[in-house]
Amino acid sequence: MTRAQLTEKILDIKREKAWTWKYICEEIGGMSPTLIVGALMGQMKLVKPLAAKAAKLFGLSEVEERMLNEVPYRGTPMPPTDPLIYRFYEMVMVNGPAWKALIEEEFGDGIMSAIDFDFDFERVANPKGDRVKITMSGKFLPYKYYGNEQGIPDYGFKED
Amino acid sequence: MTRAQLTEKILDIKREKAWTWKYICEEIGGMSPTLIVGALMGQMKLVKPLAAKAAKLFGLSEVEERMLNEVPYRGTPMPPTDPLIYRFYEMVMVNGPAWKALIEEEFGDGIMSAIDFDFDFERVANPKGDRVKITMSGKFLPYKYYGNEQGIPDYGFKED
Amino acid sequence: MTRAQLTEKILDIKREKAWTWKYICEEIGGMSPTLIVGALMGQMKLVKPLAAKAAKLFGLSEVEERMLNEVPYRGTPMPPTDPLIYRFYEMVMVNGPAWKALIEEEFGDGIMSAIDFDFDFERVANPKGDRVKITMSGKFLPYKYYGNEQGIPDYGFKED
Amino acid sequence: MTRAQLTEKILDIKREKAWTWKYICEEIGGMSPTLIVGALMGQMKLVKPLAAKAAKLFGLSEVEERMLNEVPYRGTPMPPTDPLIYRFYEMVMVNGPAWKALIEEEFGDGIMSAIDFDFDFERVANPKGDRVKITMSGKFLPYKYYGNEQGIPDYGFKED
Amino acid sequence: MTRAQLTEKILDIKREKAWTWKYICEEIGGMSPTLIVGALMGQMKLVKPLAAKAAKLFGLSEVEERMLNEVPYRGTPMPPTDPLIYRFYEMVMVNGPAWKALIEEEFGDGIMSAIDFDFDFERVANPKGDRVKITMSGKFLPYKYYGNEQGIPDYGFKED
Amino acid sequence: MTRAQLTEKILDIKREKAWTWKYICEEIGGMSPTLIVGALMGQMKLVKPLAAKAAKLFGLSEVEERMLNEVPYRGTPMPPTDPLIYRFYEMVMVNGPAWKALIEEEFGDGIMSAIDFDFDFERVANPKGDRVKITMSGKFLPYKYYGNEQGIPDYGFKED
Amino acid sequence: MTRAQLTEKILDIKREKAWTWKYICEEIGGMSPTLIVGALMGQMKLVKPLAAKAAKLFGLSEVEERMLNEVPYRGTPMPPTDPLIYRFYEMVMVNGPAWKALIEEEFGDGIMSAIDFDFDFERVANPKGDRVKITMSGKFLPYKYYGNEQGIPDYGFKED
Amino acid sequence: MTRAQLTEKILDIKREKAWTWKYICEEIGGMSPTLIVGALMGQMKLVKPLAAKAAKLFGLSEVEERMLNEVPYRGTPMPPTDPLIYRFYEMVMVNGPAWKALIEEEFGDGIMSAIDFDFDFERVANPKGDRVKITMSGKFLPYKYYGNEQGIPDYGFKED
Amino acid sequence: MTRAQLTEKILDIKREKAWTWKYICEEIGGMSPTLIVGALMGQMKLVKPLAAKAAKLFGLSEVEERMLNEVPYRGTPMPPTDPLIYRFYEMVMVNGPAWKALIEEEFGDGIMSAIDFDFDFERVANPKGDRVKITMSGKFLPYKYYGNEQGIPDYGFKED
Amino acid sequence: MTRAQLTEKILDIKREKAWTWKYICEEIGGMSPTLIVGALMGQMKLVKPLAAKAAKLFGLSEVEERMLNEVPYRGTPMPPTDPLIYRFYEMVMVNGPAWKALIEEEFGDGIMSAIDFDFDFERVANPKGDRVKITMSGKFLPYKYYGNEQGIPDYGFKED
Repeated sequence: MTRAQLTEKILDIKREKAWTWKYICEEIGGMSPTLIVGALMGQMKLVKPLAAKAAKLFGLSEVEERMLNEVPYRGTPMPPTDPLIYRFYEMVMVNGPAWKALIEEEFGDGIMSAIDFDFDFERVANPKGDRVKITMSGKFLPYKYYGNEQGIPDYGFKED
Repeated sequence: MTRAQLTEKILDIKREKAWTWKYICEEIGGMSPTLIVGALMGQMKLVKPLAAKAAKLFGLSEVEERMLNEVPYRGTPMPPTDPLIYRFYEMVMVNGPAWKALIEEEFGDGIMSAIDFDFDFERVANPKGDRVKITMSGKFLPYKYYGNEQGIPDYGFKED
Repeated sequence: MTRAQLTEKILDIKREKAWTWKYICEEIGGMSPTLIVGALMGQMKLVKPLAAKAAKLFGLSEVEERMLNEVPYRGTPMPPTDPLIYRFYEMVMVNGPAWKALIEEEFGDGIMSAIDFDFDFERVANPKGDRVKITMSGKFLPYKYYGNEQGIPDYGFKED
Repeated sequence: MTRAQLTEKILDIKREKAWTWKYICEEIGGMSPTLIVGALMGQMKLVKPLAAKAAKLFGLSEVEERMLNEVPYRGTPMPPTDPLIYRFYEMVMVNGPAWKALIEEEFGDGIMSAIDFDFDFERVANPKGDRVKITMSGKFLPYKYYGNEQGIPDYGFKED
Repeated sequence: MTRAQLTEKILDIKREKAWTWKYICEEIGGMSPTLIVGALMGQMKLVKPLAAKAAKLFGLSEVEERMLNEVPYRGTPMPPTDPLIYRFYEMVMVNGPAWKALIEEEFGDGIMSAIDFDFDFERVANPKGDRVKITMSGKFLPYKYYGNEQGIPDYGFKED
Repeated sequence: MTRAQLTEKILDIKREKAWTWKYICEEIGGMSPTLIVGALMGQMKLVKPLAAKAAKLFGLSEVEERMLNEVPYRGTPMPPTDPLIYRFYEMVMVNGPAWKALIEEEFGDGIMSAIDFDFDFERVANPKGDRVKITMSGKFLPYKYYGNEQGIPDYGFKED
Repeated sequence: MTRAQLTEKILDIKREKAWTWKYICEEIGGMSPTLIVGALMGQMKLVKPLAAKAAKLFGLSEVEERMLNEVPYRGTPMPPTDPLIYRFYEMVMVNGPAWKALIEEEFGDGIMSAIDFDFDFERVANPKGDRVKITMSGKFLPYKYYGNEQGIPDYGFKED
Repeated sequence: MTRAQLTEKILDIKREKAWTWKYICEEIGGMSPTLIVGALMGQMKLVKPLAAKAAKLFGLSEVEERMLNEVPYRGTPMPPTDPLIYRFYEMVMVNGPAWKALIEEEFGDGIMSAIDFDFDFERVANPKGDRVKITMSGKFLPYKYYGNEQGIPDYGFKED
Repeated sequence: MTRAQLTEKILDIKREKAWTWKYICEEIGGMSPTLIVGALMGQMKLVKPLAAKAAKLFGLSEVEERMLNEVPYRGTPMPPTDPLIYRFYEMVMVNGPAWKALIEEEFGDGIMSAIDFDFDFERVANPKGDRVKITMSGKFLPYKYYGNEQGIPDYGFKED
Repeated sequence: MTRAQLTEKILDIKREKAWTWKYICEEIGGMSPTLIVGALMGQMKLVKPLAAKAAKLFGLSEVEERMLNEVPYRGTPMPPTDPLIYRFYEMVMVNGPAWKALIEEEFGDGIMSAIDFDFDFERVANPKGDRVKITMSGKFLPYKYYGNEQGIPDYGFKED
């Protein structure tokens, strides 16, 4: 059994039962829908208590439950051909240089983590058309400036 | 002159003057730093009053000022090799399927616009390491379900 | 079951019954053939009343009917190797820069939507060889020029 | 001199003079703006009388005028990174299979030409946001079904 | 059933019967072997009378016969890894620019059609090693120079 | 100096003098226009007497003449974006499998050489539109079936 | 049945019988192990007498024996990810320009054939570590310099 | 000025002075040679005191010194064609799945940081040939399992 | 049976038994976990005694045991989409040029072997977050500078 | 100055002087022409005494001489578009699997080095057309099977 086969099985059951993701996430609970849906679609790991709940909800075997608790080989084909996902890709492609310039000026040399990271979205009513509002935060991780072969020196200066 | 040459010139002046992006954005004003920095780096158009301010600040010629007011050929090479930008790319690659599932369940068939879209980030102090907090919103655009050759019919049903 | 398997099944039935797309679209009705054929080939969602008609026509199960009502992961491999589809791709590749220049001059900075978009084609008799006439329209979406961190300002100027 | 250098020169002059494409196309006249702008951007050939007008307008040398009359090596990098052009690319990627099915059913085995092809766009006012309306037509070219080594036979049947 | 599965079935039968392509093409008749073999390998459509003959020869079902009469999604993976096919690809890669220059000088701006196109090959005995002689012809299609928004004008000049 | 720079110089002179390729090939003579134009565009070597004639015609230096006599690094970017060249590429992509099957059945295991190869094209008048007729021949090269480590054995059978 | 399936079957039998390639090549005999192993792995054709021996050895059906006698669609995915094969790829990537310069200087304009080509390797004992010694030879094929439209002329000079 | 131009200038000076990297790193001091050489080759930022030392050593202008203190757009073309760098790439390609399995079993779901990361290498004498010994360490960053829309819940369980 | 199928079977058994890699490696023993896990995941060969132990542990057939003893076709798709593996890829992409410069200065022209290579990792407790410490060493292999056609000369100089 | 610029300069001088590679290699001497030509074309390092001879021969500056003594960033674009180099690439692509199977059976798990490697070619007269004979040898490097965390164990068995 591969993780892709388990995902297909879960989607088959969801369709057969006519469940929504909202219902599924409420039943499993305890984590962001992004993580729960991500796990059920093969991109995230479900921690054991949630894998147990998911297994009960979907009627999965013990082995399938364990697979949901495994860290999958993450990632999907790029560039995304689906328009909804492509728009996010385009935001990065067009705005990436500006984001880099501004984040580095504010935080110094480093990155915003895609691992120690949270994400939420909500619907914002708007007379011109409702908007998708996204809030996310990621830990800033500074590049480590490390020492020479004789050990990590005291640079005697702060990073700048 | 190409837009890339203008970008290089602007970065040379910024470096020579030892200006920060914060200073530059305050001087030009009136728009999000993401858009102003994006325009100066060749990914966005500056509207005329701001292009005039930018030209004055950087001592640009009238022709260069007009170029800042042009819509550039947007986009940067993908996949991004720079770690800071790659982390955003990875968020889309790993979370894209879950975002698609959740947004479509909430909003129906369509996309979150990358055009009618705004973006902001701020620093959030955190004892375990400060975080980059990002807030963005994009207009939801529903797929248009259009009619047959004899005109757009009244479907007699709402989209579902 | 994957969407690709459902598409293969539908094409098998169409072949077995020797139906034309014209017949199928008339039976399902209510939308452009581009959308109906697109949905049956796995690129579009059929709204519920049409999915029900399609299911009845093809003798699909309830679960298959629900799948037709799902938003698929859109997109096909690019560049297209099929000559008919490649010609459209080539039109974009060769004429893209001119279209961009002319649309932006007429409408300002933005895009013609590929989502809020309709498409129709008809046969035009011509003594030198009939022509395929295509008419499409897409909503123009202006790039949003948004404000700085203190909120969306009144720019005091119109976009130019 | 390369065609790309000539394009850059023409765009420099356009910017310096603050001309619009509309003005340029009226001055050169006699063909669709798509073709004239396409030629000035290095994707089309200008026939001699128009090349002469373009050369006069832009103050080009005789050699540059001749270059405008040459057939360029057509094509631009794909996939397009610019959002405006990408939307056209996406239309082909998502709708290509349906267009193929419908055109082949109506016209038989063949293609819609991207060479014997015309294109026009206009602005359509719309209270929900103006639309870009595109009309294009291309000659349908049937696949030639040719004979065996002893010459082209009379098939005794019409293509089906 | 996919077209690739039908091709595999046909090749299995050909192998089992130990038939040559020459025999198969004579039995089906009426068209160039390039087209008949192309159709049996999934790249061309067989017109109805020939599809009927092919179905009888290979013992295909009525549904399989109909599939042979469908226009397939044409095209094979590129670059070709097989040496025989790669040599043709290399001819285009190395000689393409010269062919373009010479054909455009002789015929004007346009293309040699790959649709209204015929192909034949024969063996030419040669004491230094027999040669494959290929003869092909394609209709020259001139680029259409079309008019402006007010209709197709009389240019008052011939294309040059 | 690179070969690409020499090609650009030759094309500049051709444009300045308003020469045709026909004129240039007649002046240089002695070989197919495909080879002469190919060499002037950087894809072929001109043998010494022809390089001398070309140098005289274009007023090239002795060093440039020698460069024309060098074997260039052949090949152009693929896939070709130019429509004229793409049509040849498409012929190979669509017809390659059939050509392979037919040539191998006629000649055995091997290839048609792209090196010991000649090419000619001519215009064929046709009331429905003139045609480009291409004739080419290439030496058939059989795959060598060689022996084991103790030398090339006498197989005692002919290749089949 | 595809050639890949036959290869998998042959490898399954080899594994089950615990045969070495040396044993298999001795049993089939008559050709270089490179060719025999190549054919059993789907990259070469086995001539009929050897296909018969291979079929007997592996207990293949008559149809499978015929498939071994067919010319396969040659080629494997590139770049090779396997380290052993990559090292050969790297030799070409790094040394290709020097090989080209030296072979062309010695032989003139042309190629070393990859078709009329033989290959052998042997183990050479060496106190610092045994070496793989490879000997190969390929026929040199000169580029054909062919004539103009009026036939192949007598150039009156030897190629240089 | 681009960062690539500054790198080329620095390498020119290094060559002219016949300096070693060892000498350069000792002169600049205070950080690992990997970071200093990385910065001089355009992949890392030099903190201000070190940029000042580097500027003095190489005789750089104040503007060039500031550029060394900027965070560059990191990353080099992949896959690496240089054999030395390719070997590292190959280690990741071949061993990546095992490293992932073992690190996740030991540390849980997360990554080893490539940002908070240090690297050192040393020469280890060995009678069979000296070895390059590499020691590196990276902070383990666990995937953040975050809560639902009503805030981050207390899961009541530890991650497993 | 393919190696990928064997890997899937082994992972199924590991999941069913709820074994850790640590347990599996202790049971099989005798080699680094990187090699054992690598072999079980299809990237390495297990020597016979270990293949026998692995077969006993997992209840594999004799044929499957032999497959574990075969050298697989190594390599996994690149670039890696999984974040954990990507971080290693990024280290090479960003630091490759500096590593090359420093290793070549210390060792001369050559590479660090990815074949005669060992790897180990351990957990290092750290109050700011535990670290993954990696130690690896590879044999340095100098480029061989070999002689001309008359044999390997005595260069009379040491490599520098 | 980049290595590519130095290569261009050397080729310019070679052309101006009308030198052959044979002459150049005799003048520089002491190593295989493959290495000397490789170094002059930017793919190899020349050891100091040879770099000195090359500098004298070509009249290079001291700095240029030092650059010839540097290890370049090796590698050329792949796949090769030039027919001569492509044929070597094709040999690897078609024969790679057989070479892997045979070398591994003879030598065990490992590679033939592309670093500790020598290469020679010679012309072999042949009445059917002269042949390029290539002899190369590379050190066989066995994969290192290393121990677990407690040190390298004595496996008590030889590798098999």
